[in-house]
Amino acid sequence: MRILGIDPGIATVGFGIIDSERGAALCPVQYGAILTQAGLPLATRLYQINCDLEELIETFHPDVISVEELFFNTNITTGIAVAHGRGIILYTAEKLGIPIFEYTPSQVKQAVVGYGKAQKQQVMDMTRRLLKLKSIPKPDDAADGLALAICHARSSTSLLQQNPSAKPTV
Amino acid sequence: MRILGIDPGIATVGFGIIDSERGAALCPVQYGAILTQAGLPLATRLYQINCDLEELIETFHPDVISVEELFFNTNITTGIAVAHGRGIILYTAEKLGIPIFEYTPSQVKQAVVGYGKAQKQQVMDMTRRLLKLKSIPKPDDAADGLALAICHARSSTSLLQQNPSAKPTV
Repeated sequence: MRILGIDPGIATVGFGIIDSERGAALCPVQYGAILTQAGLPLATRLYQINCDLEELIETFHPDVISVEELFFNTNITTGIAVAHGRGIILYTAEKLGIPIFEYTPSQVKQAVVGYGKAQKQQVMDMTRRLLKLKSIPKPDDAADGLALAICHARSSTSLLQQNPSAKPTV
Repeated sequence: MRILGIDPGIATVGFGIIDSERGAALCPVQYGAILTQAGLPLATRLYQINCDLEELIETFHPDVISVEELFFNTNITTGIAVAHGRGIILYTAEKLGIPIFEYTPSQVKQAVVGYGKAQKQQVMDMTRRLLKLKSIPKPDDAADGLALAICHARSSTSLLQQNPSAKPTV
């Protein structure tokens, strides 16, 4: 199963693609970030995110997309902007018929580090180790994308272990 | 100039289309709402909003789109959801090459009623009068869409009056 993990945003949309097969180590395929230019109209940046994400999907053919859920307790302005971008990510996945799974930051930490309140640095370091990378991926958003992909790999694996007939639901 | 006013949302996207020619009364063309079903995945609802909005635009060929800006001081959960939908509206307009103008609720009230702190009922009643409609359009979101269209008509007219060479900027 090929998983595309996405950390939503407007200026930077982090992504990480991994292959996950039962009984085998997780295998990193690609990671990086879609960047949009500050100062451009929001609509233009949203359109670019859609175009770049479609290209990414058509290049790597992920089976599922794992996207972070949004929680904002502090900066509502940032939250509103990120939600615009997240809408485009969900729309693009739906348009291309790819199942979407959503995870909270706490679920990602739990799946990657084994502790739902882990520090960001611990998540990034564990992401590096699990994927046998020489260094922590940059930018941070790319590492977050990989962590989301790992989260789905581990969550769906454990679902299957609990009930071999279970399939992930959309 | 044909203006499509849009009140963003997820369950209900209100819209109102008017024709505005200098020196002539505003003329209502169509109004209504794009409705999406509660319980469907957010991605599915976003995809439907895009499809329905594209169909609306291809049917009525607006010259510009007037969209409400988002301000949320109370319910951040609703704000985040609406921002997902607003992202799709901006994206769709950009994809189809239609200039986008954004107005705050206060600007809409000022343009329609002449008072930036007007009550919602006053805005709806003035919308009805300006467009010579027999009753206030339903649902409320449709009336809000028409008010946004009127706001752009009046704002762009006054811009032109101040400076005949001025053109609205995106």
